[in-house]
Amino acid sequence: MIIVMKNEIDEDEINKIKAKMRKLGCETSEVIGSNYHILGLVGDTSRIDPSLIKSNRNVEKVIFVQEPYKKVNRLFKPKDTIVDIGGNKFGGGYFSVIAGPCSVEGEDQIISIAKSVKSSGAGLLRGGAFKPRTSPYSFQGMGLDGLDLLKKARKETGLPIVTELMSPHMIERFVEDVDVIQIGARNMQNFDLLKEVGKTNKPILLKRGMSATIEELLMAAEYIMSSGNENIILCERGIRTFEKYTRNTIDLSAIPVIKKKSHLPVIVDPSHAAGLWWMVEPLAKAAMAVGADGLMVEVHNDPANALCDGEQSIKPSRFEEMMVKLRKIAEIENKIML
Amino acid sequence: MIIVMKNEIDEDEINKIKAKMRKLGCETSEVIGSNYHILGLVGDTSRIDPSLIKSNRNVEKVIFVQEPYKKVNRLFKPKDTIVDIGGNKFGGGYFSVIAGPCSVEGEDQIISIAKSVKSSGAGLLRGGAFKPRTSPYSFQGMGLDGLDLLKKARKETGLPIVTELMSPHMIERFVEDVDVIQIGARNMQNFDLLKEVGKTNKPILLKRGMSATIEELLMAAEYIMSSGNENIILCERGIRTFEKYTRNTIDLSAIPVIKKKSHLPVIVDPSHAAGLWWMVEPLAKAAMAVGADGLMVEVHNDPANALCDGEQSIKPSRFEEMMVKLRKIAEIENKIML
Amino acid sequence: MIIVMKNEIDEDEINKIKAKMRKLGCETSEVIGSNYHILGLVGDTSRIDPSLIKSNRNVEKVIFVQEPYKKVNRLFKPKDTIVDIGGNKFGGGYFSVIAGPCSVEGEDQIISIAKSVKSSGAGLLRGGAFKPRTSPYSFQGMGLDGLDLLKKARKETGLPIVTELMSPHMIERFVEDVDVIQIGARNMQNFDLLKEVGKTNKPILLKRGMSATIEELLMAAEYIMSSGNENIILCERGIRTFEKYTRNTIDLSAIPVIKKKSHLPVIVDPSHAAGLWWMVEPLAKAAMAVGADGLMVEVHNDPANALCDGEQSIKPSRFEEMMVKLRKIAEIENKIML
Amino acid sequence: MIIVMKNEIDEDEINKIKAKMRKLGCETSEVIGSNYHILGLVGDTSRIDPSLIKSNRNVEKVIFVQEPYKKVNRLFKPKDTIVDIGGNKFGGGYFSVIAGPCSVEGEDQIISIAKSVKSSGAGLLRGGAFKPRTSPYSFQGMGLDGLDLLKKARKETGLPIVTELMSPHMIERFVEDVDVIQIGARNMQNFDLLKEVGKTNKPILLKRGMSATIEELLMAAEYIMSSGNENIILCERGIRTFEKYTRNTIDLSAIPVIKKKSHLPVIVDPSHAAGLWWMVEPLAKAAMAVGADGLMVEVHNDPANALCDGEQSIKPSRFEEMMVKLRKIAEIENKIML
Repeated sequence: MIIVMKNEIDEDEINKIKAKMRKLGCETSEVIGSNYHILGLVGDTSRIDPSLIKSNRNVEKVIFVQEPYKKVNRLFKPKDTIVDIGGNKFGGGYFSVIAGPCSVEGEDQIISIAKSVKSSGAGLLRGGAFKPRTSPYSFQGMGLDGLDLLKKARKETGLPIVTELMSPHMIERFVEDVDVIQIGARNMQNFDLLKEVGKTNKPILLKRGMSATIEELLMAAEYIMSSGNENIILCERGIRTFEKYTRNTIDLSAIPVIKKKSHLPVIVDPSHAAGLWWMVEPLAKAAMAVGADGLMVEVHNDPANALCDGEQSIKPSRFEEMMVKLRKIAEIENKIML
Repeated sequence: MIIVMKNEIDEDEINKIKAKMRKLGCETSEVIGSNYHILGLVGDTSRIDPSLIKSNRNVEKVIFVQEPYKKVNRLFKPKDTIVDIGGNKFGGGYFSVIAGPCSVEGEDQIISIAKSVKSSGAGLLRGGAFKPRTSPYSFQGMGLDGLDLLKKARKETGLPIVTELMSPHMIERFVEDVDVIQIGARNMQNFDLLKEVGKTNKPILLKRGMSATIEELLMAAEYIMSSGNENIILCERGIRTFEKYTRNTIDLSAIPVIKKKSHLPVIVDPSHAAGLWWMVEPLAKAAMAVGADGLMVEVHNDPANALCDGEQSIKPSRFEEMMVKLRKIAEIENKIML
Repeated sequence: MIIVMKNEIDEDEINKIKAKMRKLGCETSEVIGSNYHILGLVGDTSRIDPSLIKSNRNVEKVIFVQEPYKKVNRLFKPKDTIVDIGGNKFGGGYFSVIAGPCSVEGEDQIISIAKSVKSSGAGLLRGGAFKPRTSPYSFQGMGLDGLDLLKKARKETGLPIVTELMSPHMIERFVEDVDVIQIGARNMQNFDLLKEVGKTNKPILLKRGMSATIEELLMAAEYIMSSGNENIILCERGIRTFEKYTRNTIDLSAIPVIKKKSHLPVIVDPSHAAGLWWMVEPLAKAAMAVGADGLMVEVHNDPANALCDGEQSIKPSRFEEMMVKLRKIAEIENKIML
Repeated sequence: MIIVMKNEIDEDEINKIKAKMRKLGCETSEVIGSNYHILGLVGDTSRIDPSLIKSNRNVEKVIFVQEPYKKVNRLFKPKDTIVDIGGNKFGGGYFSVIAGPCSVEGEDQIISIAKSVKSSGAGLLRGGAFKPRTSPYSFQGMGLDGLDLLKKARKETGLPIVTELMSPHMIERFVEDVDVIQIGARNMQNFDLLKEVGKTNKPILLKRGMSATIEELLMAAEYIMSSGNENIILCERGIRTFEKYTRNTIDLSAIPVIKKKSHLPVIVDPSHAAGLWWMVEPLAKAAMAVGADGLMVEVHNDPANALCDGEQSIKPSRFEEMMVKLRKIAEIENKIML
């Protein structure tokens, strides 16, 4: 961490700051420029809250050199974390695909989609039981009944199930019933929820918030890891920009960045990113080519009558074709698709 | 709502869509262009989820004409809602100021700040007990002890208290203890929390999410209102853009838009918007001039040693000066500052 | 085009608008909703400036149904345009690679890089002679001397040359000397320059502005085409967002959108998009997988001592490796790389 | 400037970088942290291009401490620059208003608007002769005829005229004919144009690009100043964000930032920022309250039939009322409105 101070600052003030830093566990080195006075901190600065220093009126800027995250940092754990869910692996060269409808709508629907995506090679089943919707008048999901149907689909197909948890009071049910707990984009900085899922040992699928920086995504994962749970899969699902043709702007450059900065696996959700079914396949292939460890794809047997996000869901037959193409790229990229 | 369809669509498909619309309670009118085929919906479309229509592969676009919100819409309630908290009013020409530290740090701190902001004319006291922080290693607030200290400060000064609720399981305590429940920017689309506070009759201070559109903010308020609680104050606190000199980019143009679209009062938080103490005063004056119904300002007796966000807090003496200037503009703007 | 009017509007006003539309060549159809009054336009609306209608105080919104571009629109020319530069083709299944240094720095430099990228399979040579730089104190390019060196490199290798034109007064020299005229991101809406290059018959490489929507990029191309030049290659080079880890955020979803909306070829510049040399290869592969018609890549023999953007340039050996990998994906994607 | 290097870097590499810095005129100081190795530069770094350093593969980050601009920097010229155009002053406590139509449409139009805005207290007349338009099919301005009409309006009213220059080949005509040369948002980084106007001694109105950071705006001004012209008025006119209700998002926090960082005057264009006539007045008042040195406002006698941007133009009567209110705020703010 580097502290840039106004250059007219007097000795006393500098000594006060140095003392404060020493109390926080860091030694300081000085660089005196023509217009500024700089303190470089030596020591573990990852746990220092920069706002404690910026609040000093003599401080011009505080610059992080060391990343503010520790447990998710590849610097301290160079080897890829592999998250294994019933043999489906993410990271370390493994590439798995989560597929299923936006929301669970009924028994026939979820079971038939589950069978179909399984036969095309998906390793896990997704399906929303509790749905975060912009409007209170939109379908909010089937709730616990949806959860029961997901369990039936798992029993029928053997596919582990992934579904979104929106509120801490449901956590026990989720730990018992689901295989991967999804934290949605809107809850990426719902810190109470992060701490709660951090206390479980369930794999967590953590989606990037729609205006979260890559660093903030990693800090959200740090919340979970620092609470004790190290089974985390990150997910890029598009960010909000000025461009409105697509629902969000997929940030595929985030993938190589995350792979460099962290040991955690990272997957891509091309369905939410674009919001348009005909873009799912090209974006899925690009995600594989850019280095992602997996995908989460919305598949629906009858998109035109889906209760949620039908415009971004592909049909099972198209999913099947896409998986064939992905396997070809996987071969070139040396990714293992089971 | 207008549905734009591909022009090569056949009669049957159009009839299917028309039938679907009729089931949703709307009649349709057709406009046939050279390259497109358009259906205009007649009826109450505010409760129709557009994704149910967009999912049809023959549909090119769905365009909202009517706003998707109803209860917050000025169209259906032209008169300003006035939220009154112990005589401090927001809306309908009234302008009130909420002031206090970012977080409660101790008894002396909160009481001395409360006394001081009261004497300068603040009508309500703010102070965080539970703090949403990007890093798990930063100060997370004093929790329930902080809540107790806020109550002491209220007892001492008579100022109603405003503090942030982060999790539904604390809601009973908050309803009993605080005067205004704040929903923070990161939780603006924590829909479970919105529904919960919607069931209470406490005034709610709803902050705009950092990448929420104005419409999404109004839809979040619609969640609360449709659950039964009509006491809502909206708050602009800066949005995330490419500009990084300021912590966020304050969107003051949102104020006239919200005043036009909704009857709810809207205030501005210049402290979080800029993240820099020396910008609080100019932004506060601009907020008044642009038509806001109040302010929420961070004031700290010793910003340099604040445990949180000291760089954006102003000292009591500066707050005092600012209030004097605001009163002068209030006079010109015909705003009533008690 | 659809015109949404306030519903309290009187008959006379509507008739005035209808008459205005008739003069602009369009007939109107009415849809009367409960709160709004809608006019649907029938006829060619692509040349109507919506601001002429929005200016009416009774008009609530104007919504485009038909795209505002005509000549670049795939609707009116379904077949891919193939831009052919000395046998190097972009579009229609052909994939070509432009490579070279950010700026021309000297004879040895440009010739050695040209030879090297040619041997790895690049089809065209890039190199800046006139450089747009944020600071007036940064290296501004070698100017006309740079142009001469590019010509020498072309003579030596046979590679056609691509370089950026910044000002209309240089246009004759460029038409004479270069094979592809590049319009940089900062000049995408320099309309005078667009009109000037539109009058030539040189192939134009038009880069997307850093905050230009896809539609604005297509409208910029429309300027060139409507001036008479139909040889245009579009280029995605990253957009400006809140994320600052990468120099820009590459918008790979723009590629399928552009391919759907327009017949023009579109390539990707992964070097400027990310601004980081180690991300060039994964992004290049993703660009191919997502459907781009080519690439523009910065290659420098000695990045550490480059006079411009060395941090985003890859070395010739790495370029060689990347080309090998790209060819493999090209095979799967049925793209023809000569 | 601070250079952060990888910590496994060897002595030799560091010495090479130090030597390179010495050649660029700077001495270096070292700070050795646990995971990083830092070099602090001592000397004038404002002219060092950071990309020359970042290109070194051992360099992790380069951080600016000193601003990259010099002549526009308040550090080196603490007193406000006052730009005086025929007695109308911007900066140093003076507040002037530029008003007029988006584009010159005819003699009667421009003269009647000129008279009217003059009588309401505007100090300068704006009016576009050459118009940058997104579509080639929209009205492109009257060109040189428009310029002639502006001169007539000046003769008639005495108001100095402000109009946009889009291309360097018109510069002589503009120098002869107009009083203030406007550089539009789309040309803020048209560096050739900046250099050309920098060689004149005409006052320049430099508008912020729609995705330009504050620093980039100041760097664009630095181009002009470093070419010799010190008469520059900056203009905030809204930036592009995800919010689409307004045409752009006005960044009023940029005003106090610019006033702190630079001695140049800065004004606000509320018409282009919002794109909606009914928001012009509240934003204009907010601009005054936040500390701007002037305004540029679109006024049209018949907005409904304006040839350009009628939806953001106010009528003369409304302009008159707004000026009255602005004068009242000016009094409180100690701004001198002539």
